[in-house]
Amino acid sequence: MAFAAGATTEKSARDRSAKDRLGALVGDDLEAVNAAILARMDSPVALIPQLAGHIIAAGGKRLRPMLTLASARLCGYQGQRHIPLAACVEFIHTATLLHDDVVDDSGLRRGLATANAVWGNKASVLVGDFLFSRAFQLMVEDGSLRILKILSDASAIIAEGEVQQLMTANDTSTDEATYLDVIRSKTAALFAAACQVGAVVAERPEAEEEALRRFGLNFGMAFQLIDDVLDYNADQSELGKSVGDDFRDGKVTLPVVLAFARGNESERGFWRRCIEEQDQGDADLEEALKLMQRHGALADAMERARSYGLAALENLDTFAESAIKAALAETLEQSLRRIS
Amino acid sequence: MAFAAGATTEKSARDRSAKDRLGALVGDDLEAVNAAILARMDSPVALIPQLAGHIIAAGGKRLRPMLTLASARLCGYQGQRHIPLAACVEFIHTATLLHDDVVDDSGLRRGLATANAVWGNKASVLVGDFLFSRAFQLMVEDGSLRILKILSDASAIIAEGEVQQLMTANDTSTDEATYLDVIRSKTAALFAAACQVGAVVAERPEAEEEALRRFGLNFGMAFQLIDDVLDYNADQSELGKSVGDDFRDGKVTLPVVLAFARGNESERGFWRRCIEEQDQGDADLEEALKLMQRHGALADAMERARSYGLAALENLDTFAESAIKAALAETLEQSLRRIS
Repeated sequence: MAFAAGATTEKSARDRSAKDRLGALVGDDLEAVNAAILARMDSPVALIPQLAGHIIAAGGKRLRPMLTLASARLCGYQGQRHIPLAACVEFIHTATLLHDDVVDDSGLRRGLATANAVWGNKASVLVGDFLFSRAFQLMVEDGSLRILKILSDASAIIAEGEVQQLMTANDTSTDEATYLDVIRSKTAALFAAACQVGAVVAERPEAEEEALRRFGLNFGMAFQLIDDVLDYNADQSELGKSVGDDFRDGKVTLPVVLAFARGNESERGFWRRCIEEQDQGDADLEEALKLMQRHGALADAMERARSYGLAALENLDTFAESAIKAALAETLEQSLRRIS
Repeated sequence: MAFAAGATTEKSARDRSAKDRLGALVGDDLEAVNAAILARMDSPVALIPQLAGHIIAAGGKRLRPMLTLASARLCGYQGQRHIPLAACVEFIHTATLLHDDVVDDSGLRRGLATANAVWGNKASVLVGDFLFSRAFQLMVEDGSLRILKILSDASAIIAEGEVQQLMTANDTSTDEATYLDVIRSKTAALFAAACQVGAVVAERPEAEEEALRRFGLNFGMAFQLIDDVLDYNADQSELGKSVGDDFRDGKVTLPVVLAFARGNESERGFWRRCIEEQDQGDADLEEALKLMQRHGALADAMERARSYGLAALENLDTFAESAIKAALAETLEQSLRRIS
C-alpha cells in the first residue's frame, strides 16, 4: 500500500524538480504552516506585521519548516503539532535573518530590498526580537519541554555562532576548523533541530530521532558550504544577493581560508589587504577568484559540501524506503547541484 | 514567631535605606542569583562573557530579579527555583538593554560606556540574542510551562512596546494613552512577570499571584514614568546617563505629551521643530524645561507616577504584614522619592 501510494506520487512528481516533489508531498501542510505564520506574526503594532510580512512573504525556500514537516511525515506522524512547530522554526530563522542583515548592513536579500534597508536597523532589531519571542510562545502552546529544550538550545548555539562569525570576520588567520564550528552553530544547528522536532512529535525511538538530527546537521553543513561557494561563483539572479558580498564584507569563508592557507607570501598580502584592511579596488574580486581557482579553493569547498551531503544521505538509511524519504534525499541533492 | 524574626530584621535594617533593607532580606538569594548570572552568561565564544559581563557587572539595580526573589519570599517560598528564574528575568532585561542601546545609539548607561560604544552595534545585537536564548534555556531547565508562558508572553509584549515606542518617536501627535501603552509593554510587563513568577514557584492561590502581578505592573508604570521625568530634571551623576537624552533623541514621553497638548500654537511649533524635525539648538533643552514648567508637565507626570505607586501599594494589601512586605513597599517608595 505504501508502495502504491508512493508510485502514484512518483508519477505526478516525475516532471517536477526535487523541491517540488517534496513540496507536493507536504504541500497541504506547508500551506497550513504559511497560514500559521501569517496569523501569528500579527500584532496591534502595525509595523510588526508590515516588516515581518516583507521578509516572510518575500518567499524564501521555507526549507527549514519543510524539513520539520517532512521529518514528521517520514516518522509516520499523523497529528497536527508539526504545523505550528514548523512555523516556529521559520520564526527563529526569520529573526536571525533580520538581525543578520543589520549586522552585515545588507541591502539585498532573496533579490529584494532587506527590511533594514526599507525600515531601518532599529525596526529590524526589534521585530526580530518579537518574532523570536513569538516562536517561544508557539512552543509553549505546543507544551513539550523536550521541544522547548531542543529549540532553545539551538537558538543559543545560533547566537554563539553569529558572534563567533563576527570575531572571525576580517581575520585571515581563521582556520578550517573554526570556520566549520561557525557554520555548524549558525546554520546547521537549526537544520538539525528542525528535523529532530519532526521525530519528537512522532514519538519515535531515540535512534530515529538521532538519525534525523544528524541528517539535518549534515544537510545544514552542506547547505552553508554551498552558499559560501556560491557567493563567489553564482549568477546574482540565482543567488538573490550580490556575488562577492562576503568578499566585500571581509567574511572569512572556506574558499578564503583555503586560498590563504595555500597561497604564497605575496598572495597572503593580497588577502590581508582585501580582507583584514578592507582596502579593495575594482579588480580585486576577480583577482580573488583567480587565486581561488589556482589553489582549487572553490573545488575543495564544494568537495567538503558533497561529503557532508553524502553523510546526510547515509543518515536516512535508518528509515525504510518511501516517497517522502526519496523526496528528502532529492531536496538535499538539489541543494548540492546548485554548485555542480 | 514571624513578628520576632521581623523585629530582629527591622532593627538591623534601621540605619539602611529601603533598598538596603530589601537587600538585607534577600541578600543571600541575590548573591546566588549573581553567581548564576555569571555562570550562565559563560560561553566558549570569548566575546560573549566579555560583553555580557560589561553590562551585567556594571551593576545596575538588579531591581527585577530582586522583585522575583522578594515575591517568592513574600509568598513563603522555601525552595531554590526562584534563583535561576530571577537570573532569567535579569537576562531578558539585559538583552533588552543591549538592543535598546543599539536602537537609541546610546553611548552611556549607568554612568559607563555602553556595550555598543565599546564593541559595536553588531556584537550588542548578537550577544543580546544569546542572553535571550539563555533565558529560555534557564526556564526550560526549571521545567514549568506556566512560567515559560508568563515570560515568553512578557518578552513578546516587551518587543511590541519597543516597536511601538519607535513608531511614536518624533511624533508629537502621540497622546497620553499611547504613551501609557508603550511603557506598560516595554517596562511594566517585565516587572509584572518578575513578581508573578515569585508567586508561581510558591504555588500560591490565584488571588496572590494576581495581586503580585498587579503590584509589579503598577510598580513598573511608576518606575518608567519617574525615569522619563528624571530625564528632564535629574543630576546626571544620579541618572547614570545624560539629562535631556530623550529630548535630543526625539522621544515623546509624558512630559512632552502634556506640554505639547497644553501649549499654544507657537509652543507646538517649538516641539515640532525640536522633536519631529530634530532641529535643535543649544538653548532648546532649557526652553523645553521652561515650557514643561509653565504647563505643570513634569509635576503632573510625577503625579501619575505617584498614583501608580499607590495602586501598587494597595496590591500588597492581599498579604499579611511582614518584614519582606514592608521592605517591598519601601523599595517602591524609594523609587518614587527619586523625584520628590
